[in-house]
Amino acid sequence: MEYLQQSFSVRFEYKTFFTSGLFELSNTGFNDFIAADSTSASIKKILFVVDQDVLKANPKLADQIRRYFSIHKAAQLIPEIIAMPGGELIKNDEGFFSRVLQIINQYNIDRHSYVAAIGGGSILDMVGYAAAVAHRGVKHIRIPTTVLSQNDSGVGVKNSINYFGKKNFLGTFVPPVAVFNDDQFLLTLSDRDYRSGIAEAIKVSLIKDAAFFEWLEANADALVARDMPTMKYLIKRCAELHLNHIAGLDPFEKGSSRPLDFGHWSAHKLEQLTNFKVLHGEAVAMGIALDTVYSNLSGRISVDEANRVVNLIKKIGFEITHPLLEVTGDDSPILIGLQEFREHLGGELTIMLLERIGVGIEVHEMDAQLIKKAGEILKNEHAALSAV
Amino acid sequence: MEYLQQSFSVRFEYKTFFTSGLFELSNTGFNDFIAADSTSASIKKILFVVDQDVLKANPKLADQIRRYFSIHKAAQLIPEIIAMPGGELIKNDEGFFSRVLQIINQYNIDRHSYVAAIGGGSILDMVGYAAAVAHRGVKHIRIPTTVLSQNDSGVGVKNSINYFGKKNFLGTFVPPVAVFNDDQFLLTLSDRDYRSGIAEAIKVSLIKDAAFFEWLEANADALVARDMPTMKYLIKRCAELHLNHIAGLDPFEKGSSRPLDFGHWSAHKLEQLTNFKVLHGEAVAMGIALDTVYSNLSGRISVDEANRVVNLIKKIGFEITHPLLEVTGDDSPILIGLQEFREHLGGELTIMLLERIGVGIEVHEMDAQLIKKAGEILKNEHAALSAV
Repeated sequence: MEYLQQSFSVRFEYKTFFTSGLFELSNTGFNDFIAADSTSASIKKILFVVDQDVLKANPKLADQIRRYFSIHKAAQLIPEIIAMPGGELIKNDEGFFSRVLQIINQYNIDRHSYVAAIGGGSILDMVGYAAAVAHRGVKHIRIPTTVLSQNDSGVGVKNSINYFGKKNFLGTFVPPVAVFNDDQFLLTLSDRDYRSGIAEAIKVSLIKDAAFFEWLEANADALVARDMPTMKYLIKRCAELHLNHIAGLDPFEKGSSRPLDFGHWSAHKLEQLTNFKVLHGEAVAMGIALDTVYSNLSGRISVDEANRVVNLIKKIGFEITHPLLEVTGDDSPILIGLQEFREHLGGELTIMLLERIGVGIEVHEMDAQLIKKAGEILKNEHAALSAV
Repeated sequence: MEYLQQSFSVRFEYKTFFTSGLFELSNTGFNDFIAADSTSASIKKILFVVDQDVLKANPKLADQIRRYFSIHKAAQLIPEIIAMPGGELIKNDEGFFSRVLQIINQYNIDRHSYVAAIGGGSILDMVGYAAAVAHRGVKHIRIPTTVLSQNDSGVGVKNSINYFGKKNFLGTFVPPVAVFNDDQFLLTLSDRDYRSGIAEAIKVSLIKDAAFFEWLEANADALVARDMPTMKYLIKRCAELHLNHIAGLDPFEKGSSRPLDFGHWSAHKLEQLTNFKVLHGEAVAMGIALDTVYSNLSGRISVDEANRVVNLIKKIGFEITHPLLEVTGDDSPILIGLQEFREHLGGELTIMLLERIGVGIEVHEMDAQLIKKAGEILKNEHAALSAV
């Protein structure tokens, strides 16, 4: 059949900045970014959508932003700072997504203007999706406020909302124009939220960087004690590994391989089953423990290394398993979750396991009996394991 | 401010096929494409969404598709062929978009499966948008059935729906995985629809390819007579120029320049004001005439060449102006349309004019008095112009 071949490449570039006190008047970094971004003669407007819990924890933030843009004028601030709830709720209820679109329309935010989101991964996902589709893409700036979003989801290229009760059913691959990680936001996090974000650092170290895993082991106490320089290093290294992965073979996930989903297949199901009462990082920590022990049982990572992984997870303060992760029969939720994950990937299962610390390996089948045994070991025998 | 630099390129490739009788059993091109596309072990499903007027004009089409996939099995056909209205209506009412999402969900269409749309530009835009955001992108195949969509919008990388009463307010830049142009669909078009698509060929010739313009002049009679080989050449050359343009500097329109929007700023307003009773191509033909005469009045294209442009538009059978394009005062709809276009572009106006046939030039201001005079010339004096 006769045809014309189309082929072109699109270059995507953005910076993930690291700062402290982003909207302090003396900190010109944000304004400098806007001033340097694009040479269009158009007026650049900027709209802020902020997690209401972040506003509550940082009661001066809205005024601080207004003052900042009254002095630093690279962009024209939309004076209304939009407050919205954070958490999974904001991705479940389409009304929040629609409201962001409505505000983009109301304030004539165009392709040369900015929609900035301040908050955790959920609000960044939702606002990022709205920004990606309004006018086929207005400029989106992410200001993640949690450990999890600063080191992982916030620096990536995905956005989404839930739909038909399915996580991330709607979304796009559209990078932000910039990410600003401000360590001051970490100060107001609860211990539980703070800890939760460390799971993704453990995950990425296990599949990409053994030295980073060793660093995590050596610095576990400082992380638990919320030592800020230690956390800043963790976030930067984790973000860097994440960014490098995206820039690798398949930024927009055209293939089936999802190495960064290590430990996630069971975690997604657990979050859903507990109605997100188990936090994402908590679920991922359990998922990592499960897939690590499974990796050992299926002849991959050594028992010594598996023990080091489980022990690090425990040392950070995570639970290592959950009753809903137990296999009690063919219809156990976790096996249904595995089936759903297979369907989500389009029929061919691809699961990342561990060859050893720092080296992952993809498999296309998982054995239900070994999943069961891995769960039992985590539940019953981890005293033995951790005694090694 | 400290930062990590992210940069990567994403390669986009797709073919625009030209065929006759796409779903005839002997034509294996479509099946060959699916069989060769991706090496995933997953089952590939395919869902068809078809313009109901196309189904009416081609009453055997649905059965033909079912028979085709019962013999050629590279993809598993979803037996339900979804019929939807064509035209702008389908982009205005979000219900159609939601229904496509619901069907994608219902039949578990995933990233390795296909949503094919058969119809004109509007239904391709809407279905393409749904496919782009479901699961962050399922594979989308376009089968354009009109001259306009086969030579222009159908081969491009944009999709959209209207929202808040604004044309294309929501959408993405996501290329299809393939386009199939089947000339058999052109046989059932009305003369008006058939003619309408020729406007984009005139447009692209004027800004890109003087030789193609001369070919259009030489073949105007054959086009009016609906000679098929002539139309096939027109569609292929126009699609090629369009594809080459996209593959050029700015596929996803990050800048303000929109050369392919030559003649479109007034056309968009006219379509909207007439509630799309004036077809897109008809409005574009008038928009080209206006901007061509304006180009002459503002010291660019010669009067001889401007006359050739207007005469070709007339010879194809288009009207060259419309009462709603007249400037009668500062609040004339066309001047409001110009203002809206400026806002749509983000404050800086960029309008393509003609330096000469085949060579465009961008300007950032338009003179209301010259727009008025151009309209008057088209209305009153074109007899004189065309006598040259």
